[in-house]
Amino acid sequence: MKKIEHIGIAVKNLDESNELFTALFGKKHYKIEAVESEGVKTSFFKAGPNKIELLEATSTDSPIAKFIEKKGEGIHHIAFAVDNIEEEIERLSKEGFQVLNKTPKKGADNKLVAFLHPKTTNGVLIELCQDIKK
Amino acid sequence: MKKIEHIGIAVKNLDESNELFTALFGKKHYKIEAVESEGVKTSFFKAGPNKIELLEATSTDSPIAKFIEKKGEGIHHIAFAVDNIEEEIERLSKEGFQVLNKTPKKGADNKLVAFLHPKTTNGVLIELCQDIKK
Repeated sequence: MKKIEHIGIAVKNLDESNELFTALFGKKHYKIEAVESEGVKTSFFKAGPNKIELLEATSTDSPIAKFIEKKGEGIHHIAFAVDNIEEEIERLSKEGFQVLNKTPKKGADNKLVAFLHPKTTNGVLIELCQDIKK
Repeated sequence: MKKIEHIGIAVKNLDESNELFTALFGKKHYKIEAVESEGVKTSFFKAGPNKIELLEATSTDSPIAKFIEKKGEGIHHIAFAVDNIEEEIERLSKEGFQVLNKTPKKGADNKLVAFLHPKTTNGVLIELCQDIKK
């Protein structure tokens, strides 16, 4: 785990939350991106070496819609940057963590991603992410 | 906001969670610290420029005990490093955020800290923290 790549925050209204986080950080988001496979629209803010990803559901069966229905707005996941996501998936599976994506999938922001089930990580949904080499 | 200084995670049993996060990161925590004023025992892990702070309640009226009772184990707060915490408190108060500590208080890990109420920040408890100059 090289660093916290980003923290994902579930929000009801991306436009309103973009304003709120612009006021918080004193600067605007640098990107808006839709991830259709996940049913979300996202925006990204920078905080030095780290990012904040705001996530708004674009369909009622999106994981973000279900999260907000159950828990309300708030922190949805922590993403850690890794050098080699396949190796980390294998290592963590052997350590007993429940890896939800044995084969990494394409996420937002040009990343390969895989999630660990929160029941094996103290209630924290953890994402591993690796830059897609161009 | 210079970076994510740390993410605070509420846990029921610090010893068990230290083992879990040691397996996750492939390395041990570098510090255990009690913060009596907050009724917590903490441990810290490094992930590059960022830290993970595990928090176990040491009394039933600790904010962490109340959090776990209400929501279960999981992410409790995000802390952002700032250069000048008094200036940030003033700026964010003017922006309409509810700052819970108008005067910063002493936190773990040699920091001055102040919290923003989650009702003004999309359900996210945000901590500002500044190194205490020696």
